[in-house]
Amino acid sequence: MSSALPCPHLFRRLAAKALRFTLLVAAVLALAQAHAAEEKPAKGLTMQQVLDASKPADWRALDPRNTLYMELPNGRVVIELAPTFAPLHAENIRKLVAEKYFDGLAILRVQDNFVTQWGDPDAEDAQKARSLGTAIRKFAAEFTRPAKSLPFTVLGDGDLYAPEVGFSDGFPAARDPKRGEAWLAHCYGMVGAGRDNDPQSGSGAELYVVIGHAPRQLDRNIATVGRVVKGMELLAALPRGTGPMGFYEHAEERLPIRSVRLAADVPSGERSDLELLRTDGATFAALIESRRNRKDEWYLEPAGHIDLCSVPLPVRARAATP
Amino acid sequence: MSSALPCPHLFRRLAAKALRFTLLVAAVLALAQAHAAEEKPAKGLTMQQVLDASKPADWRALDPRNTLYMELPNGRVVIELAPTFAPLHAENIRKLVAEKYFDGLAILRVQDNFVTQWGDPDAEDAQKARSLGTAIRKFAAEFTRPAKSLPFTVLGDGDLYAPEVGFSDGFPAARDPKRGEAWLAHCYGMVGAGRDNDPQSGSGAELYVVIGHAPRQLDRNIATVGRVVKGMELLAALPRGTGPMGFYEHAEERLPIRSVRLAADVPSGERSDLELLRTDGATFAALIESRRNRKDEWYLEPAGHIDLCSVPLPVRARAATP
Repeated sequence: MSSALPCPHLFRRLAAKALRFTLLVAAVLALAQAHAAEEKPAKGLTMQQVLDASKPADWRALDPRNTLYMELPNGRVVIELAPTFAPLHAENIRKLVAEKYFDGLAILRVQDNFVTQWGDPDAEDAQKARSLGTAIRKFAAEFTRPAKSLPFTVLGDGDLYAPEVGFSDGFPAARDPKRGEAWLAHCYGMVGAGRDNDPQSGSGAELYVVIGHAPRQLDRNIATVGRVVKGMELLAALPRGTGPMGFYEHAEERLPIRSVRLAADVPSGERSDLELLRTDGATFAALIESRRNRKDEWYLEPAGHIDLCSVPLPVRARAATP
Repeated sequence: MSSALPCPHLFRRLAAKALRFTLLVAAVLALAQAHAAEEKPAKGLTMQQVLDASKPADWRALDPRNTLYMELPNGRVVIELAPTFAPLHAENIRKLVAEKYFDGLAILRVQDNFVTQWGDPDAEDAQKARSLGTAIRKFAAEFTRPAKSLPFTVLGDGDLYAPEVGFSDGFPAARDPKRGEAWLAHCYGMVGAGRDNDPQSGSGAELYVVIGHAPRQLDRNIATVGRVVKGMELLAALPRGTGPMGFYEHAEERLPIRSVRLAADVPSGERSDLELLRTDGATFAALIESRRNRKDEWYLEPAGHIDLCSVPLPVRARAATP
């Protein structure tokens, strides 16, 4: 329906003012909307589309002081340490690595749907065990850390094991506001420091990585010291050990470790130049949404929720500096 | 504080009556408690203690009509079919197996932290694809089934993906009372029928097994047809494919399948005589509790909850009949 109205001069002036005001409001709204689009997860994108649209600032380079290269006969495993959560362990592991503790040691245990573990096969034998050098054998357990002042991006989908979960420093994490504690979550690929019954016995000289469904019951019971960011397939595809808890029964079954080095100690030309998607930005929020409710044509029933350990943490080769 | 009271005859008679009544009540309560102890999970046991205390009736034998043996160069994989959830798929797979469809086919895809998949490498090539024989190419999708009248033991720990989860017929399952639907959950070791975008294209001629963190987003999007009950380590420890989605890029990388047979068609002396812990009894409830809150000396912080896919489904060699 349209209606023709008489238009005196006064009315025309008012109308012009109203139009200018309307245009101003529209411009402000458009700006606000554009800003919101930057802050809120984009709707209806696949993960690949989210990654394709990401900007250089959405990515962070690995810090060579917090990066380990474990050289195996079948390739290199890259591990990012988590000093924000386990600073004493990170420092101890740096010492072990600087003194070549792991060189010539081996993968000792591969338990299906649980962990792959490496260290000194003779660790229990006081005569034959390799010296930890200047590294320390016992120190604070570091199973949790204070939640206060820790940057934490909440995943609002809920969790069965913790009051709150999300991401901190690029790692899947959990926190308990009542207890004021935060900790890393045992998701696929997370690396921890094996220990005996003594809570302080996890020096970092024996490490494991999760190769199965997230064993979240380990959370807050052991120090989680980092995450494999490249090379998981080398640790997850190993033959399972046939001894108790998946330990290899015969020395010849063990895969030898050629060396473990801190990236900072490796010539720059030999480094794995990787970058990881930041977990605190709008791009990561969009990525989570793309996995929570899949837009791929294949999916008929979007899940509606996503659990912490199902959120991918993308890694890529760093774009060459021009 | 004690107080001495005068005790006339009448009072003494009343007191005697009260005592008899109290003893009766106490006896009834004791009986009720003993009964409850049988029904409720025992407290403070480790999983091994629960299994050691289990009775023969807590276990069920595999039905040879619902059991597949996949013979690989590195050993036998035993799969239990789930006809309660996917009867058409189970029947189609029985046909394929009876006509030796899988013999000489291969493992085509191993995607880290996701699935191992097998079938006909030439399935997409109309000229070279192996015939499905009397098996059917397309039929109802069977992504869910009616929840009504389906036996279902609820796991009360909650779930992020479904209104209710638990166990049915020995399998991890989920249900939605509002929609009246039930389905199998994609936990580690669960087997599904690969499909294209067409929901009815999963004939059972291409199967996959979960080898990583539970991809629960697949629930209700694909037909889950069973579970690997023995031999997971043979499928999970294979080299990861380097092509898109973990497909092997070269034919020589594929692990050949020697044969797949229905246990019923295998001489009894060659069968894997296994039994599985029933998921609907007090022993299973005790087992769940032993994993929900670990009693092992190693654990300091019991998790308090357990997620569906972290509940073990024990399998053992069947005790020899005397």
